[in-house]
Amino acid sequence: MRKMHEFLDNEVTLAFVRYGLIVIGKMMLMSTITAFVRMKKKAFANPEDTASFGKGENAKKFLRTDPDVERVRRIHLNDLENIIPFLFAGFFYSFCGVTLSTALMHYRIFLGSRIFHTLAYLIPLPQPSRALAWMAGYLVTFSMMYKIVMVAFTMS
Amino acid sequence: MRKMHEFLDNEVTLAFVRYGLIVIGKMMLMSTITAFVRMKKKAFANPEDTASFGKGENAKKFLRTDPDVERVRRIHLNDLENIIPFLFAGFFYSFCGVTLSTALMHYRIFLGSRIFHTLAYLIPLPQPSRALAWMAGYLVTFSMMYKIVMVAFTMS
Amino acid sequence: MRKMHEFLDNEVTLAFVRYGLIVIGKMMLMSTITAFVRMKKKAFANPEDTASFGKGENAKKFLRTDPDVERVRRIHLNDLENIIPFLFAGFFYSFCGVTLSTALMHYRIFLGSRIFHTLAYLIPLPQPSRALAWMAGYLVTFSMMYKIVMVAFTMS
Repeated sequence: MRKMHEFLDNEVTLAFVRYGLIVIGKMMLMSTITAFVRMKKKAFANPEDTASFGKGENAKKFLRTDPDVERVRRIHLNDLENIIPFLFAGFFYSFCGVTLSTALMHYRIFLGSRIFHTLAYLIPLPQPSRALAWMAGYLVTFSMMYKIVMVAFTMS
Repeated sequence: MRKMHEFLDNEVTLAFVRYGLIVIGKMMLMSTITAFVRMKKKAFANPEDTASFGKGENAKKFLRTDPDVERVRRIHLNDLENIIPFLFAGFFYSFCGVTLSTALMHYRIFLGSRIFHTLAYLIPLPQPSRALAWMAGYLVTFSMMYKIVMVAFTMS
Repeated sequence: MRKMHEFLDNEVTLAFVRYGLIVIGKMMLMSTITAFVRMKKKAFANPEDTASFGKGENAKKFLRTDPDVERVRRIHLNDLENIIPFLFAGFFYSFCGVTLSTALMHYRIFLGSRIFHTLAYLIPLPQPSRALAWMAGYLVTFSMMYKIVMVAFTMS
């Protein structure tokens, strides 16, 4: 049986798993924040979700779109759009023979960019804070993809 | 050449691939259900999709948002948000040296939670059916991530 | 340390990484196109994004939904919905002992289907262009999943 110790004898892949875990955990947190903001703002998407607030017209008024809820949902979608390429690139990048310090720099900038992006979006901070945070993670992912291209397209 | 037989000599990873396939297949089914409900309710998002229903104003009335279509789309998005963390966690979890029966319990609860979540959303069942179904899968994913953390953050 | 050369001694997995990179790159491009169309149409989702256009009521008018922006966002979401199953299936498919030419046919049809889908959506081409493009990628993914099922469910 192949164990983590064998699979992750590659210290860069081990670093990827660690940072991937944190990034995924951060993304999953958005579900909980969405639920929390929906409760707080009493803004739901489904009639069955408002049933506990009463019947008929009384419940219908909670079936609405709220700017704060939509804001959290956009963060979550933006996470999906950016974290999936990171997971694909980060995994294969870890087998490209890069040094641990170079890989850590990539993984850490990405993690920092996503955390700062979420804060800039939630607070919200004036632009271009959010745009720059997003850009940092985007470029780090492209940098890893470029390395994989160099390795994967030059192999026989 | 590395074959599945070698790659999946780990019986837990083999179980992950099996359950991952079913979960992915279930998620892909949402695309077909969306298309089906759009046809049935005649509610489309693009002008070019309504062209077969006539021209001008006659076609424009099918360019609308329908609650049933939006419901199916929310299920699909919820699948994306939850199944991606499951695939990441489930894959690396399978290398953490857990027993097959423990892993199967995790994978099966997750699969069951997503199927029940979809049914509770589609029918729809009264809350908290859907919330509990979602919660089960969410907690199972965190349980797997906790195990990976224990293994990956204690390796030298 | 395990290097790409060892990990990707499997030429089919190497092909998967190459096509996966292009597909992911194509998907990431949608973020940039969204930002570009938002700028061009002056249609933003967040108040802080419109601050540079002036204050108060003057900025508020740019806080709106634009059909072209929504179109690009739908392409991006459709990419997420279809590319994630492709990445899962394509990776494990590459270990199923298929010939390189068979695998390349799958990967290339999928890539072509997503590029044509995006063009058909952006231009837009009359239906059923987009529907057929989507269908091709969907069926290719199912074909790979069928092969994995055959291998993974017949192993002891």
